[in-house]
Amino acid sequence: MKVRTYEEVSPKDLSGERNASRVEMKEMITGADGAPSFSLRVFRLGPEGYTPFHAHPWEHEVFVFEGTGSVVGEGTNYPLRKGCSVFVPQGEMHQFRAGGEGMAFVCCVPHKG
Amino acid sequence: MKVRTYEEVSPKDLSGERNASRVEMKEMITGADGAPSFSLRVFRLGPEGYTPFHAHPWEHEVFVFEGTGSVVGEGTNYPLRKGCSVFVPQGEMHQFRAGGEGMAFVCCVPHKG
Repeated sequence: MKVRTYEEVSPKDLSGERNASRVEMKEMITGADGAPSFSLRVFRLGPEGYTPFHAHPWEHEVFVFEGTGSVVGEGTNYPLRKGCSVFVPQGEMHQFRAGGEGMAFVCCVPHKG
Repeated sequence: MKVRTYEEVSPKDLSGERNASRVEMKEMITGADGAPSFSLRVFRLGPEGYTPFHAHPWEHEVFVFEGTGSVVGEGTNYPLRKGCSVFVPQGEMHQFRAGGEGMAFVCCVPHKG
């Protein structure tokens, strides 16, 4: 098995990419670890940070474990806090937005993502 | 998309099953939600709780978000705390054990699990 701490994984700063702001991602488990079909990443959004409002041909499985914010879809806006899960089906528009204290969540995707 | 809070999902008490103790699981995202290939569950272990020491033909992708404990393998024992990820390959023996304050983690598995 492979155990990692959050601190030992290098972050990828996604801020400014494709209309995102204050977004950091750490890839905790990927295909390079031998994971056969899906990856586990942790996203950390700074205060008022946001991911792009976009869609792609793979799903997201998300669990919020710190902070508060929301997830925006086509005409929808759900509040998020620690303990919320979000399933985003493939092809569906979505954007994660942090509140004033930021937000952190696990986001799993199939390897094609 | 589907958003759920931890509180609204009914727990499954796995204590006593197959040599486990003080284990509660909530299935946050499953195939019933339309997830095409893997599920996201949250496990909560009470103080000194533990999952079975077992193996199965599917992997685990785990992220600890509360508490402390350890993950035991064949001759290995890694400490765990908030921010640790664990990749358990298919077929590998493993057991999650909580410390005195309990431990909570996300555990994703392919649907065959």
